[in-house]
Amino acid sequence: MRTKRDLDILFNPRSIAFIGASQNPAKWGFIIPLNILKGQFKGELYPVNPRLESFLGIPCYPSVGAIPGSVDLAIITTPAKTVPSLIDECGAKGIRFVIVVSSNFSETGPEGAELERELVERAGRYGITIVGPNTMGIYSAASRLNALMPPVVPLEGRLSMFSQSGNVGVQMLYWGNNKGLGFNKFVSSGNEADLTCEDYLAYFGDDEATEVILGYMEGIDPGSDLIRVARRVCRKKPVLIFKGGRTATGGKAAASHSGAMAGSSRVLKGVFRQAGIVEIAESQGLIDAAKIFSAYPIPKGNRVGILTRGGGWGVITADACEEHGLVVPPLPEEIIRRLDKILPPYWSRGNPVDMAANILLEPFMECMEALAEWDEVDSVIALGGSIQGIFDFEAKVEGTKELKEVIILAREVAREYTTQNDVVLDHTRDLVDRTGKPVVVVTLGDYEGFKSDLRDHGVVSYPTPERAVKALKRMVEYRRFLDSPVEEI
Amino acid sequence: MRTKRDLDILFNPRSIAFIGASQNPAKWGFIIPLNILKGQFKGELYPVNPRLESFLGIPCYPSVGAIPGSVDLAIITTPAKTVPSLIDECGAKGIRFVIVVSSNFSETGPEGAELERELVERAGRYGITIVGPNTMGIYSAASRLNALMPPVVPLEGRLSMFSQSGNVGVQMLYWGNNKGLGFNKFVSSGNEADLTCEDYLAYFGDDEATEVILGYMEGIDPGSDLIRVARRVCRKKPVLIFKGGRTATGGKAAASHSGAMAGSSRVLKGVFRQAGIVEIAESQGLIDAAKIFSAYPIPKGNRVGILTRGGGWGVITADACEEHGLVVPPLPEEIIRRLDKILPPYWSRGNPVDMAANILLEPFMECMEALAEWDEVDSVIALGGSIQGIFDFEAKVEGTKELKEVIILAREVAREYTTQNDVVLDHTRDLVDRTGKPVVVVTLGDYEGFKSDLRDHGVVSYPTPERAVKALKRMVEYRRFLDSPVEEI
Repeated sequence: MRTKRDLDILFNPRSIAFIGASQNPAKWGFIIPLNILKGQFKGELYPVNPRLESFLGIPCYPSVGAIPGSVDLAIITTPAKTVPSLIDECGAKGIRFVIVVSSNFSETGPEGAELERELVERAGRYGITIVGPNTMGIYSAASRLNALMPPVVPLEGRLSMFSQSGNVGVQMLYWGNNKGLGFNKFVSSGNEADLTCEDYLAYFGDDEATEVILGYMEGIDPGSDLIRVARRVCRKKPVLIFKGGRTATGGKAAASHSGAMAGSSRVLKGVFRQAGIVEIAESQGLIDAAKIFSAYPIPKGNRVGILTRGGGWGVITADACEEHGLVVPPLPEEIIRRLDKILPPYWSRGNPVDMAANILLEPFMECMEALAEWDEVDSVIALGGSIQGIFDFEAKVEGTKELKEVIILAREVAREYTTQNDVVLDHTRDLVDRTGKPVVVVTLGDYEGFKSDLRDHGVVSYPTPERAVKALKRMVEYRRFLDSPVEEI
Repeated sequence: MRTKRDLDILFNPRSIAFIGASQNPAKWGFIIPLNILKGQFKGELYPVNPRLESFLGIPCYPSVGAIPGSVDLAIITTPAKTVPSLIDECGAKGIRFVIVVSSNFSETGPEGAELERELVERAGRYGITIVGPNTMGIYSAASRLNALMPPVVPLEGRLSMFSQSGNVGVQMLYWGNNKGLGFNKFVSSGNEADLTCEDYLAYFGDDEATEVILGYMEGIDPGSDLIRVARRVCRKKPVLIFKGGRTATGGKAAASHSGAMAGSSRVLKGVFRQAGIVEIAESQGLIDAAKIFSAYPIPKGNRVGILTRGGGWGVITADACEEHGLVVPPLPEEIIRRLDKILPPYWSRGNPVDMAANILLEPFMECMEALAEWDEVDSVIALGGSIQGIFDFEAKVEGTKELKEVIILAREVAREYTTQNDVVLDHTRDLVDRTGKPVVVVTLGDYEGFKSDLRDHGVVSYPTPERAVKALKRMVEYRRFLDSPVEEI
C-alpha cells in the first residue's frame, strides 16, 4: 500500500504562484486567477508572467524565482511543452505542490504521454507532488481557495469530492449551490500522473473537516489500492462513488476519455459493497444522496413510516419503498390510537398515513411526530412537508372588482400559510435531532426551495418520493455495512 | 364493450351551475368557483345558493331551477347527503353532466357506498352522466374551464390527462406549468361511480385537440375494457400510464386509497405492452415522458448519437443508454471526416462525440447537425445545448477596483453568451423539423429554463442525461408498438 500523502498544504496553502497569468479573458490564465480573487482567497496570490507588471490590481512577477516570500503551491496554465522547465523553477523555489491545469498530455496520445512522464520525473527530483495535468482545479473552504475553471463559488460545508472528470465534478458544485449543499474540499484529479483518487480518498478519510466523501471515477482496478483505502475510510465516514463506464458502451467512452479500463460492472459492484463504498448509478442520485448523508443521521434499519396529504402520493411512495428494499410496516394499535385523535374518523389507519386532504399544518406536524416516535420505524418520509412555490404570487389579477379583491386576499392568506411553513421545517429538524431518525420531506413542488429547506432549517427535501426513497436506500445500505463485522485486511 | 360516451359537452360547456357557492374562503364552494373565475371561463357561470344574492360580483341563484338560461354542466360541492336530491333538480333542469366534488361517498365505507349507489341510480333516471364523486375537478383549455381545487391554471397545450388520484393529477399540471408543458383537458376521476378511466381514455382517443394522453391509475383489471380501449387508442396517439400499486406494499396502500385491487405487476406489464400503453414507473418520469411525446416526433429506432462538451458526461450518457436499451453506434468514416473539420486534431473520433471542453456555440451546432444528419442514428442527445442558469448574474461584486471592473465585464460577456443560447435552441428545433429526429438537450443546469426551452423554442431539455435517456427510451418502446402488426381484437 502506498505511503499516506499529507495533502494539508495543497488544500490549505498560505501562498500561491499562479504561473501563466494572462490578460486575455478567453484564457484559463485569466479565468482561474479571476475565480481565485472572486473567491476571496485568504492567502497570498502571486501572478507570474514576464510580460505583465500587474494583474487585476495586484503585482505580477516575471518568474517564480522573483516572488519575494515563500510559496506553498504553484498553479500552471501555460502550454504543455513549457511545463517541465517550470517544474524546475518551482523546485528551485522550494514549492512542494504543483497543480498542472494545462492539457495536451497523456489524454491526447503518445507524444503527450511522453511529456507527462517527463513532468513526473522532474517533479520527483524536487519532491514536488503534482495534481493533474489536465485538471479543472481545486477548491478548499478553509482557505477560501477557489482555483476552478468555471465561475462557481461553492457553498461551504462538510462534503469533500474527488472527480476523474472535471466537468462532472464541477457540476456537482453547481448543483450543491442550488440545493444548499456545502463542500469542504474538491479536486478534479485530471490525468492522475502523480496524485490519484486513492490519495485524495485517504486524505479526505483522515481529514476532520470532511464528513462525507463523494467521488466520480471511471477507471477502478478491483484489486487496487483504492479499494484497500476505501475499506478503512468507509468505517469512519460514508464514501459515495458514482462510477462512469459501468457498461460496455460507457466503458468504451471512458477509455477514450480518461483512458480508464472498465472493469466488469458485476465484479466491481461486489468489491464496492465489500469495501463499504455506497455506489451511485445516476448523476442526480449522487447529489441527492450527498444531501441526506451530509445532513441526517444514518437510520438503524430499513423500516419507513410514510405521511402523505393525498392518497395517491402515499401509494407511489409505498411502491418506491418496496422496489428499493425499504419496508413499510403496518401501524400498531398504539400509533393508531394516537393518530385517531388527530385525523378524521374515516382515516385509513394504515401506513402510509393519509391525511385525507387535510392541509392544516398543526395536525401534519403531530402525525409526523407520532411516526418519528414510533419505535418500529427507522425513518420517516413526509410528503407535503414543505409547500413553498405552490402559489403564484406574481400572477396577473383579472376579473370583476370583487374577484380582484378576493384574489389579492387569497394571495395574502397563501403567503401567510407559506410563511408558517418555516414552523413545520423547524419542527422537522427538531424531530430528527430528538429521535435520531431521518425525517425526509418530499415537497412535490418543482422549485429550489430545497436550498432554504436545507440551509436555513437543516431539513432534507426532494421534489419526488422516488428520489427521497432512493437517497434513503443508500443510507440503509451504508448502515448494513457499518453493522457488518470488520474484515481482516 | 361499453358504448362510446360523448363527453364533448362535459369538456366544452357553455354554461355551468355551481351548486354550493359559498362565501367562506375555506370551503371548496368558494375556492373552486374562484378558480373558475380566475381561469376566465368562456361560458356562463351560475352560482347556486339560496342564502346568497351574489357571489364575487356575479348574481347567485336560489336553486338550479331558478337559473334563467339552459345549463350544460352542474358542479356540486355540498355535503354528500344533499347530493341525491340535487341530482333530481339537475335532472328537472335538463342538465346532462354533473361533477360531484363532494366527498364522503364509497371512499369512507359502506354507508357512503350506499349513498353513491343512490346517486348513480338517480342520475340514471335522468340520463345524467356523473364525474366523481370525490373528484378534484376538471380542466379544459378550449373553454378556459378551470374547475379545480388547487389554485393552478394550466398552460394550454395538446396533452390530456385522467387521474385516479386528484393530488397526483394536479401535481402534473403544476409540473407542466414549471416546464412549459401545456394541457388540453384534465379530469380527476374520483370514485368513478359512473364515468371511469376507460371512458376518458376513449374520449381523449377520439378528441382531435388531444395529441398525447396521460393517466395515473391504481386499479386495472388486466381483462378490463380499459385495455381493449387502449389497444385502439394507442395506434392513434401515445398513451402514457403511471400505475400506482405495482408492489404488494403499494397495492395495500392503493386498496385503502381508491379501493383498487392491485393486479400482479408482471401480468399487467405484459398486458400494457401488448395494448401499446407506455408504462411509466416514476412520477418525475411521467412528466419527463409527457414532455418529449408532446413536442418531438417518435424516433424510427433506438440508435443514438451523443454530443458532449465534456468527456465524463459522455461516459455517463453512454452508460445510461446501454442500461435503458438504447444503442450508441460507432461513427462511420464519413461522419468522422465531417467532424474532423470542426474539432481539434486530438478529438476522440468516437460516439459520444466529445467537444473536449470547447465551449463555443458555432462548432457545437455544427456537430449537432452532423449527428442529426447521420443516417445510422434515430435521435441525438446534445449535452450542454442550453446553458442558461450557469452564471450568477446577481452575485455580489467584491475585491480591488480592477477586479470589480473585470467581474462586471465578465458578467456582460456571460450574459451575451447566454443570449446566444437562443440561437442554439432555434437551430436545434430546426434540426428536429428537418430530420424528423428527436434532438434532446441536456442542460445539466439545475434550473427551470426548461420552460422557455420548450415554450419559446420548441426544444425538449432535461437537467440530466439519465432523464433524457429514460424519456427517449419510452419513445423507442412506443415506436416498437407502432411497428408491430395490428392484433385481432
